[in-house]
Amino acid sequence: MNAVTLSGRELAADIRTGAAARAAELAAAGRPPRLAAVTATDDEASAWYVRSLGSSAAKAGIGYDVYDLGPAATAEDIEATLARLSGDPAVHGIIVQSPLPGGMRLAGLAAAIDPAKDVDGTNPVSLGRLMTGLPAFAPATAAAVISLLDRYRIAIEGRRAVVVGRSAVVGKPVAHLLLDRDATVSICHSRTRDLAAVTAQADILVAAAGHARLIGTGHVARGATVIDVGTNATSDGGMVGDVDPEVAEIAGALSPVPGGVGPVTTALLLRQVTEAAAGAA
Amino acid sequence: MNAVTLSGRELAADIRTGAAARAAELAAAGRPPRLAAVTATDDEASAWYVRSLGSSAAKAGIGYDVYDLGPAATAEDIEATLARLSGDPAVHGIIVQSPLPGGMRLAGLAAAIDPAKDVDGTNPVSLGRLMTGLPAFAPATAAAVISLLDRYRIAIEGRRAVVVGRSAVVGKPVAHLLLDRDATVSICHSRTRDLAAVTAQADILVAAAGHARLIGTGHVARGATVIDVGTNATSDGGMVGDVDPEVAEIAGALSPVPGGVGPVTTALLLRQVTEAAAGAA
Repeated sequence: MNAVTLSGRELAADIRTGAAARAAELAAAGRPPRLAAVTATDDEASAWYVRSLGSSAAKAGIGYDVYDLGPAATAEDIEATLARLSGDPAVHGIIVQSPLPGGMRLAGLAAAIDPAKDVDGTNPVSLGRLMTGLPAFAPATAAAVISLLDRYRIAIEGRRAVVVGRSAVVGKPVAHLLLDRDATVSICHSRTRDLAAVTAQADILVAAAGHARLIGTGHVARGATVIDVGTNATSDGGMVGDVDPEVAEIAGALSPVPGGVGPVTTALLLRQVTEAAAGAA
Repeated sequence: MNAVTLSGRELAADIRTGAAARAAELAAAGRPPRLAAVTATDDEASAWYVRSLGSSAAKAGIGYDVYDLGPAATAEDIEATLARLSGDPAVHGIIVQSPLPGGMRLAGLAAAIDPAKDVDGTNPVSLGRLMTGLPAFAPATAAAVISLLDRYRIAIEGRRAVVVGRSAVVGKPVAHLLLDRDATVSICHSRTRDLAAVTAQADILVAAAGHARLIGTGHVARGATVIDVGTNATSDGGMVGDVDPEVAEIAGALSPVPGGVGPVTTALLLRQVTEAAAGAA
């Protein structure tokens, strides 16, 4: 175990403290920030997350409402709810929870979220604005990767960054954020040939494939920084990342799962709610 | 000169023929397709392109109007024109020509183009939709790169593709389109260290940096496919690409400048106007 552990807990606590201070200011100004979470699933991990987010929001003084439409919800139900919340001046941030009922695309539904309230950057407009350098909320998970690198003063500019995974909620936006910070960025995925040969070129490796322990010691250059975005459920109710813990013997720095990107993501989401509330003032 | 020349002229002619047939059908159905080009510059190269596009549109039976607002135009002038054209049912495609008056951002202005008429994919909404797998018009230059690869049956899936340049109109969207076709994609730029080491790993190298002859023989692996997107003006009124012609001695295939990506881009733009006209029917 040589790698520096890139814990996200202290960073997350600092971000939450800042968000709570901002929320108190906004509340004092008669504008208490409020987050709405829309769900349409019976998934237990999702339900756990939605409750956990509510607890974090309450601690930060951010109002929080869950709109549980159930797994039988239609796309029209969800879009109507998002449109209504977008038009509600008391709501400043809106998220749609995954998974969605079969066949629905998050990006398609999220187009119904007012971009000014799209605090998790799921509306395609937010992603397009981010990619073209216009102001927009970044997906909180992608932003958390950058925050964690910055917290530990890991240089990004000019470095080779490799992102494993190409989802619209993590892989693509984190690739963009790294590019925006002047990294040379490569994106790998399930169809990449000789994944280890590509990932071994990374100064900064971001694992966001959603496959437990996909990244092993053979995938990592000695001294590289490895950020593990994976949150894969285990059969015993636990959670493991996309990176084998043995990578710590090779890497220079490694973010743990749990306790790495996850808490920072939640904290940034809350901060973005306060920013949305302030921006709408 | 060993490399196969990836000429775009025949491909462009085929695309134009298809677009002309479609335009004739639409006209017969009382819906003649029409393209509007908005310019706000005295730049000669831009004026040449606008005239050339008009000539191509006329040959394809596509109506064409230029709205020349002049270099003194304000952002409000341009946005108002784009909004008016977006609301005009006789107009099916709208493009904004670069360069723009100092300080204006194309993506910011292009947000005023109805995405259904955004035939060159410059509205950030189009880019965001493209990135999230929703229907959208791709920037014509980026789409032309893929079309040229397909025309010459160059496999993309599983290959390592390297894009040099990260603009919102070429580099980023072409990276996305290659990723969507299952390439492993790397994006390089002016801050990339040891550019040649990265580009030499490419099976498919796309040069879109806008620097004359940036890519030399030392940047290219033997047998690689090289697509030159550069259109750099020379002092004698000519045009050179981003790739040194000597690369033909190393590469397996090379697109020429002029006569490669350029004519395909124009042809695809016209095709996208007919698609917009058909879609709006």
